[in-house]
Amino acid sequence: MAQQKQFVREIADINENFPQWYTDVVLKTQLVDYGPVKGTMVIRPYGYAIWENIQRELDARFKATGHQNCYFPMLIPHSLLLKEAEHVEGFAPEVAMVHIAGGEKLSEPLVVRPTSETIFCNMFSKWINSYRDLPMKLNQWANVVRWEKTTRPFLRTSEFLWQEGHTIHATRDESFQETIDMLHLYHDFARDVLAMPTFIGQKSEKEKFAGAEATYGMEAMMLDGKSLQAGTTHHFGQKFSKAYDITFLDKDSTHKHVWQSSWGVSTRLIGAIIMAHGDQRGLVLPPKIAPVQVVVIPVASHKPGVIEKATEVANELRNAGIRVELDTRDQSPGWKFNEWEMKGVPVRLEVGPRDIENGVATYSRRDTCTKDTMPLENIADSAKALLDEIQTAMYQKSLAFRDSHVKYAHTMEELGQILDDKCFAKVVWDEDPECEAMFKDKFQATVRVMLDEEPFQDVCTCCGKKSDHLRVAIVARAY
Amino acid sequence: MAQQKQFVREIADINENFPQWYTDVVLKTQLVDYGPVKGTMVIRPYGYAIWENIQRELDARFKATGHQNCYFPMLIPHSLLLKEAEHVEGFAPEVAMVHIAGGEKLSEPLVVRPTSETIFCNMFSKWINSYRDLPMKLNQWANVVRWEKTTRPFLRTSEFLWQEGHTIHATRDESFQETIDMLHLYHDFARDVLAMPTFIGQKSEKEKFAGAEATYGMEAMMLDGKSLQAGTTHHFGQKFSKAYDITFLDKDSTHKHVWQSSWGVSTRLIGAIIMAHGDQRGLVLPPKIAPVQVVVIPVASHKPGVIEKATEVANELRNAGIRVELDTRDQSPGWKFNEWEMKGVPVRLEVGPRDIENGVATYSRRDTCTKDTMPLENIADSAKALLDEIQTAMYQKSLAFRDSHVKYAHTMEELGQILDDKCFAKVVWDEDPECEAMFKDKFQATVRVMLDEEPFQDVCTCCGKKSDHLRVAIVARAY
Repeated sequence: MAQQKQFVREIADINENFPQWYTDVVLKTQLVDYGPVKGTMVIRPYGYAIWENIQRELDARFKATGHQNCYFPMLIPHSLLLKEAEHVEGFAPEVAMVHIAGGEKLSEPLVVRPTSETIFCNMFSKWINSYRDLPMKLNQWANVVRWEKTTRPFLRTSEFLWQEGHTIHATRDESFQETIDMLHLYHDFARDVLAMPTFIGQKSEKEKFAGAEATYGMEAMMLDGKSLQAGTTHHFGQKFSKAYDITFLDKDSTHKHVWQSSWGVSTRLIGAIIMAHGDQRGLVLPPKIAPVQVVVIPVASHKPGVIEKATEVANELRNAGIRVELDTRDQSPGWKFNEWEMKGVPVRLEVGPRDIENGVATYSRRDTCTKDTMPLENIADSAKALLDEIQTAMYQKSLAFRDSHVKYAHTMEELGQILDDKCFAKVVWDEDPECEAMFKDKFQATVRVMLDEEPFQDVCTCCGKKSDHLRVAIVARAY
Repeated sequence: MAQQKQFVREIADINENFPQWYTDVVLKTQLVDYGPVKGTMVIRPYGYAIWENIQRELDARFKATGHQNCYFPMLIPHSLLLKEAEHVEGFAPEVAMVHIAGGEKLSEPLVVRPTSETIFCNMFSKWINSYRDLPMKLNQWANVVRWEKTTRPFLRTSEFLWQEGHTIHATRDESFQETIDMLHLYHDFARDVLAMPTFIGQKSEKEKFAGAEATYGMEAMMLDGKSLQAGTTHHFGQKFSKAYDITFLDKDSTHKHVWQSSWGVSTRLIGAIIMAHGDQRGLVLPPKIAPVQVVVIPVASHKPGVIEKATEVANELRNAGIRVELDTRDQSPGWKFNEWEMKGVPVRLEVGPRDIENGVATYSRRDTCTKDTMPLENIADSAKALLDEIQTAMYQKSLAFRDSHVKYAHTMEELGQILDDKCFAKVVWDEDPECEAMFKDKFQATVRVMLDEEPFQDVCTCCGKKSDHLRVAIVARAY
């Protein structure tokens, strides 16, 4: 118990100091470390394994919906960035620039990609001739650099990993549908894989992507009641295709500009998982993305047959496709229990002499911190069923938490109270930017997404005016 | 036939102009395109799918041998690069530098990684305390930038994709063994997956990696008789661990510097595959890395039942785990045959009315360009067996080609003749740098690797002197 306390003490109190809790957890579970350049992070094996699991699940979904992977150069000519006016205005302040390469000053400075619309457009304009070449639905897994003032591991770093999809189409309907389809793909992925309910909907004019006609976002509620933008999809209409001159010969023998979308999620998702599911003991990882799904710990391992049985169990689970770790390190079981709990492993299996005698293994569920036993016979089937149960339970728990933390704000007074109670507010908004500015000024809150819901009152929550364009929106404080 | 000729004419003659053939093939099969910045390439979906297959196969092998993936920042403080003298001398001329980011001049310029030894060492020195932390065997899949004067898609571009393994160990024996083990892992991978025989062995002092104690290389023979360095592994001894102060407390309670290795292969492997297996019609891809393993082409598809049967066959193959494409485009079968041949798809299956009547599909093997039929019943099994056969046959063909193009050079005169005959030469070499310089000056050839073979004569092929240190080496012209 002394050890346990000591271990737990290393992590700040989740209720008292959530930001410090987050920092403690990401560093102490060795998900990341700070890199030598300010604002950069090293993603360590335990963190990277989560990213690999996210990649595998998402990539399969992208391919199943007709997208192809590719890789575009990271260095973009500065002049290419300048072609779309809003886009350059949005990204120019954050870019890293290369002026010298190979010992020589370059004739034109290069931009390290903050996102790749400009260079995709440049190549699309070369590749596309006729309607037969459309749609072209590409994706790349890549690193991007955005030089931001404040930094936080996974949430905001000067370099991060992501995927960026870029698609072009012959008609507006098709590119718009792609924008919406990918938003739903992200939403379903978050629900089914990350066990994380999200709100999806259109972003406000102010919050949309630089150069987009419309941006859609996926917002997840963190345990401190703040919102985290976990993914976005953008509809460009023909804004970029006109700026970069991407045309095709249509069936009616006329030349037309293509219609375009882009969409992305990043290593930020790892931050979302941590803050949506964690607890005082550390990480709580959904089985589908946990690098280790089951840890097997021999108890009283000096007793005859214990190591052998623990090894046998681990192998049986591994052969059944479960990601399993057998912990035979020279440490006490208690020490190991704490470590694997902090690391959020969904199931801990203890194999000791008494368990073996009874033909069972003792298990502990990370999500509920409850203990029980399962038979050693067909243990892989039991473990799989338990992992599925945990995955579902984690989603249900998150959903219940979220639903109990979303409240209707009929007035600004109510809105302030809701936000101070660490909840999301549903407001009715007339899309007036002045009201949006008021949310920010008064409450440091922003319009996260506008929902496809009927307004619950006939006046704007902020200004109290009637309008033909009332929308229900989520207003929250955000990461 | 007119179409076929026209198609083939688009590719330069492989015997007359091999470099142009290569460029034609990579561009026309849409493996790559040139990026907007000189020296950069866009890896298009067909090329990237090959890289994904390479990654999947290699990554499984890395993990099976106890390596873990991670991701390190791309931007390295300039001062960090300067710590190991030989290393900086080797890489400084090629680096791209960031001086401005986020609109401000940085206090210290940053280097875009040309390789990541320096930043791995920087973190190792923070992470390692005791022998319990060792070995640490990390790998990352990443992009790197090296600003080179001459460029060629896949072979030499200013940015490329690769994996870089970085491992640290408690003893010299262990780090040395890792260096050798990974060399053999690459060799076996090239043989079993790329169907490509390679020579492996130590590099000369002149050719070794900047900062390494010893470098080992894997060299493959291209169809023009030139050698391509397809992978390298490096043993650093304690050179970097002393420069970056990476120490651990050993079991004997003394502080020691760790022993280190690194190793990598890159998208260059795609260039190797093209030049090791291609022919006049274009690409010839080994089944294990082919993005499309079988293409199904309906013949006389307006006839009743043809499209249906072709679709059924394609689905059956897909369900059996074969990467299959059903080509129902509105083009003639001949046009499609040419396109898929150029793209190197291992097996083409034609499904026409007569085939269906006879209960068969007509197939064409890309490696031999021979045609035959296979029964429609259990067609997935037949197709799998055929793919395996092609994989093996391609390796045997490459091996026979290579073995018939390696000759013993007893004298410089013989060496010149062998190289002019577009062969590799085995020489006996006394490791004198002057002899190495002579190979270069007289024949534009280099020592590729030193082999673990007994010298076939007792004097150096170059200088004719006797020596205690005679080594058998491969001398060849190289990419």
